[in-house]
Amino acid sequence: MKKRIGILGSTGSIGKNSLIVINNLISNGCDCEVVFLSSNENIIELEKQVIEFKPKSLFINNENSFKSASSNSSFKNTELLNGKQDLLDLVTRNNYDILINSFVGFAGTVPTVEAIKAGKRIALANKETMVVAGKIINELCDKYKTEVIPIDSEHSAILQCLIGEKNGNIKKIILTASGGPFRGYNCEKLKSVTVLDALKHPNWNMGNKITIDSATLMNKGLEMIEAKWLFKVDASMIDVIVHPQSIIHSMVEFCDTSIKAQMGIPDMKVPIQFALTYPERVKSSFVPLDFSTIAKLEFENVDSDSFKCLKIAYDVLILGGTYSAVLNASNEIAVDLFLKEKIAFTDIPGIIEDSLDKHTSVNDFSLEDLINIDTETRIKLIEKYNL
Amino acid sequence: MKKRIGILGSTGSIGKNSLIVINNLISNGCDCEVVFLSSNENIIELEKQVIEFKPKSLFINNENSFKSASSNSSFKNTELLNGKQDLLDLVTRNNYDILINSFVGFAGTVPTVEAIKAGKRIALANKETMVVAGKIINELCDKYKTEVIPIDSEHSAILQCLIGEKNGNIKKIILTASGGPFRGYNCEKLKSVTVLDALKHPNWNMGNKITIDSATLMNKGLEMIEAKWLFKVDASMIDVIVHPQSIIHSMVEFCDTSIKAQMGIPDMKVPIQFALTYPERVKSSFVPLDFSTIAKLEFENVDSDSFKCLKIAYDVLILGGTYSAVLNASNEIAVDLFLKEKIAFTDIPGIIEDSLDKHTSVNDFSLEDLINIDTETRIKLIEKYNL
Repeated sequence: MKKRIGILGSTGSIGKNSLIVINNLISNGCDCEVVFLSSNENIIELEKQVIEFKPKSLFINNENSFKSASSNSSFKNTELLNGKQDLLDLVTRNNYDILINSFVGFAGTVPTVEAIKAGKRIALANKETMVVAGKIINELCDKYKTEVIPIDSEHSAILQCLIGEKNGNIKKIILTASGGPFRGYNCEKLKSVTVLDALKHPNWNMGNKITIDSATLMNKGLEMIEAKWLFKVDASMIDVIVHPQSIIHSMVEFCDTSIKAQMGIPDMKVPIQFALTYPERVKSSFVPLDFSTIAKLEFENVDSDSFKCLKIAYDVLILGGTYSAVLNASNEIAVDLFLKEKIAFTDIPGIIEDSLDKHTSVNDFSLEDLINIDTETRIKLIEKYNL
Repeated sequence: MKKRIGILGSTGSIGKNSLIVINNLISNGCDCEVVFLSSNENIIELEKQVIEFKPKSLFINNENSFKSASSNSSFKNTELLNGKQDLLDLVTRNNYDILINSFVGFAGTVPTVEAIKAGKRIALANKETMVVAGKIINELCDKYKTEVIPIDSEHSAILQCLIGEKNGNIKKIILTASGGPFRGYNCEKLKSVTVLDALKHPNWNMGNKITIDSATLMNKGLEMIEAKWLFKVDASMIDVIVHPQSIIHSMVEFCDTSIKAQMGIPDMKVPIQFALTYPERVKSSFVPLDFSTIAKLEFENVDSDSFKCLKIAYDVLILGGTYSAVLNASNEIAVDLFLKEKIAFTDIPGIIEDSLDKHTSVNDFSLEDLINIDTETRIKLIEKYNL
């Protein structure tokens, strides 16, 4: 069956890898078409992608970049789009089937929701959507008979472990965490880490926001919440273990104590391809794992005394309601403040905790409620910190 | 659905664990009945099992033990059977559904074949059957519409990794090997190992024959051949990696480079239960794996220069034909000679190699041919070594 694919965020790490995956699929006989691409402002990369993949449409978020693209002859045969309405129009068109959403942050939520309503399959790299609006996304997927397939390596691993298994037989979902660049640091040592230190992830090459989330372990906290919604399990069934080598991408323990794990070298192309081919698999020429080169795989408990973000996210996982919107929005701002060197690394959890403390959570909410809570949380912090 | 179970070899390690598993299944609401039990001669253990599980029939292989059981009041309500014909009659009766076959060695083959012809599901701990007669067993399973479910932890792991996956997507089956008690020994050091040394397996508590096979790595060689038949894959797709902790029980690499592994503490109860419940899972109170207690998982290549049995078995895996009958029979005798201290540990591969060299393999063969080759191979060695 032909796969007609649209990519939100095609010039980022996930977007670029997605295009390599699409090339692999094509060279293995899959009928794939790239229908649209999008970027915030990276025209140079978009130009290369347009020449290679000849998409029908391009969404360019930044208005100046959009204008400069309009006068670029490389794009003369490509429809150029800009602005919120164009984006929502693009993702609901009937000229494509699968949306790869790798937008960063909560901004990815509304296009996902609209694409689901149009019956698209979502290959989701934007974890914030499930963290904040997982309940609503699940209801919409049921209603519009479609599904969200995770691109996160951890959730892809869990999905792969669950193929052919019954959800009712899950005893525990065990997310592995590399521990990030500051594994083993205590509170005192964390105080003096710099932005440059935090951007050096030991195993994965990713965008800035997720790399900082990996350093604070908030990324793992968000993944716990994401797992709850993706796999429809109780919060108490989700565990995290530090595994510094990132070879085991995650695991599932079943009711009979049997554990299944999915493994590989850290390479986002594998989960991206699985999201596009699920429940099938297609041959690839990606680099396989060679066990004779692995000295050892290690495991250790998470230090949630030093890495407070994980503890905060776990509390939100248990509490539920609209807390997750506040968790996510305050984390996005806190990460931005840290990246702009306006706060210290160890100030991040305090900002999030403070936002959560001031919030009154409700259990019955709409997408609009979540958008409002997200906006309010951001505005308060932006004002307070003069961002 | 009621599970009516017969156990061949109920007083051995697999047999005893099977009864614990059956108790676990019963306590979790499964309707299980133990229809028959069997032992070579362990009347004391059989007596305990009869009191607890009240089987209809008992097969006792050793004639003296059978006679002494006949006068034992504990067995007065149990049918007692002895002799080859009784055994074949027992396994083909319509009063049971699942045969757990944990007989040791090629002797397990004929009862398995007859049970398959009677449409029974086979939970197979007797790997020699698949090694020698895998081709015939597969043909019979197709013809009589039943299946062989492996109890070996490695093959159970592979089966679990393959649930919901297509066989055509397998790129590689990766069997893990503990390396046995002599991991790291070179040829010279292996020359002086004793029977007592060889019986000390680092991770698994098993019968003598399989423990020696684990020490020579012939066990892993037999498992490679077993895997070929159980999972219908080409010999070139089967790999072995040494993993001393025996936590990862085996793995499957798929065409997209994704690897799935099944893990747990070394405990035969998990694969036994899976063989009885497959493709379902049932809750258990077996001891789960606690990752916080695992310091590390290690991997290393197999040293097939020092452990020649693995290399010999691999050659037989590639060659196919009737070589596997000679491999298995000569190995059974060589292990017996070593256990009786008539040969050195390092004499085992030479005896097997010599038997293989003298054999002319054919590709078209019947079960009778295999039985004849098995018998001839044994007789020659028994005569040569005055066993």
